[in-house]
Amino acid sequence: MIQEALQKDISIMQKSSPVDLVTETDQKVEQLIISSIKEKFPTHSFIGEESVAAGATSNLTDNPTWIIDPIDGTTNFVHRFPFVSMSIGFAVKKEIEFGIVYSCQEGKMYTARKGKGSFCNGEPIKVSGQEDITKSLVLTEMGFKKDSEHFKTMMGNIETILTIPVHGIRSPGSAAVNMCLVACGAADAYYHMGIHCWDMAGGAAIIREAGGVIMDISGGPFDLMSRRLIIASSRTIAERISQVIKAFPVGRDDIEG
Amino acid sequence: MIQEALQKDISIMQKSSPVDLVTETDQKVEQLIISSIKEKFPTHSFIGEESVAAGATSNLTDNPTWIIDPIDGTTNFVHRFPFVSMSIGFAVKKEIEFGIVYSCQEGKMYTARKGKGSFCNGEPIKVSGQEDITKSLVLTEMGFKKDSEHFKTMMGNIETILTIPVHGIRSPGSAAVNMCLVACGAADAYYHMGIHCWDMAGGAAIIREAGGVIMDISGGPFDLMSRRLIIASSRTIAERISQVIKAFPVGRDDIEG
Repeated sequence: MIQEALQKDISIMQKSSPVDLVTETDQKVEQLIISSIKEKFPTHSFIGEESVAAGATSNLTDNPTWIIDPIDGTTNFVHRFPFVSMSIGFAVKKEIEFGIVYSCQEGKMYTARKGKGSFCNGEPIKVSGQEDITKSLVLTEMGFKKDSEHFKTMMGNIETILTIPVHGIRSPGSAAVNMCLVACGAADAYYHMGIHCWDMAGGAAIIREAGGVIMDISGGPFDLMSRRLIIASSRTIAERISQVIKAFPVGRDDIEG
Repeated sequence: MIQEALQKDISIMQKSSPVDLVTETDQKVEQLIISSIKEKFPTHSFIGEESVAAGATSNLTDNPTWIIDPIDGTTNFVHRFPFVSMSIGFAVKKEIEFGIVYSCQEGKMYTARKGKGSFCNGEPIKVSGQEDITKSLVLTEMGFKKDSEHFKTMMGNIETILTIPVHGIRSPGSAAVNMCLVACGAADAYYHMGIHCWDMAGGAAIIREAGGVIMDISGGPFDLMSRRLIIASSRTIAERISQVIKAFPVGRDDIEG
């Protein structure tokens, strides 16, 4: 469905009303996923980006819950920039049991199940194991925030990381793909504030099972509803990032408003 | 050859001596390209990244000249980050006649010949045609520069572009691939200071033949040896970028030292 939408003429994508096209495809993909799963598991719960946008709750309960991002990287999707993905995480008693991220244009299907390892198109993957941050490639995303304090902190963090120095910073534009790139060793760390549980749930399983570390920006335990994360190839690198970057308030997914 | 090197265990790539591995592959690829061409065209000139590193001149003359980057995106190469390319541009009387960029991991072969259009794997490509910078996706790269004025200007430029605002900034890490991403409409602009003629020569043919605009950072004509460029889907966007960003001195490829 996503690939079909990506085939459309780029002038339709970008000129008429790209937001509508994204919303339409987003909703269709989410509906397809939720209705297929509901048929088999009628008692399960769902947290989906589009359902939440339409007013559904995003509270995570102990009930088996599917956490879905139908299109991760919507700006990339509108521009047909190579990283666009679909992400699903499955949690039981608030613990993620498995995750799936499909990077549509790359044709890469990442999967992981608790205790069973991480895979890309069926082949086992693992993190780079890098411990030295000065030899690392770091992922993060830059967006304009109207609140100038947030924006300054975000830019300041990038400057801080570059100055360590690191090998480089890359911004691919899809949180779920970023997590998979670290999981397969193509990058060594990724940090982000302001994303949502549906951006992180699938990738969280994949990074853990690939031998990576996932933690909160503060250095404490990862919290799926906190809208922030650091992941890395090693605890050393994750902790170093948590020590040097500054946090800005981003709210939570499980608190209204 | 590049793909073979990328198959090697990532621990060899990153732990032992990644710089040596890059240099070895870089040199082997450049030698292969130059020796193959020399057999057929013994009078032609060459400007290759590795040859220049070994002391060869990078003066561009009127003689038919092959301008070669054996591996564009060497940091990506070391990390196996998805964008690694080989770039060749061919100039006669200092004018680029054709260009070839092969994005190895994506399996995308971009080609263009003056007056004959641009292609990706044989299919015609064109720029997005976007005229509105606020709807554009912009590419640039961030590197740490020891000279803090350069670094501040580079970070300030990113802040300026984000604040316009634009849809987003992406940093894929390969100049030649960045040029091809704009050429095929997956991004709308790319600007960079500090790159070399071998990073730009192949892509310059590809962006022009795809209907894109290429100019100097100042807004004046593009100069292959100037180590800087702006490319875009339209003149409007390219000129807007040249108006808002600040230049820092980067030297020239055709002046020693």
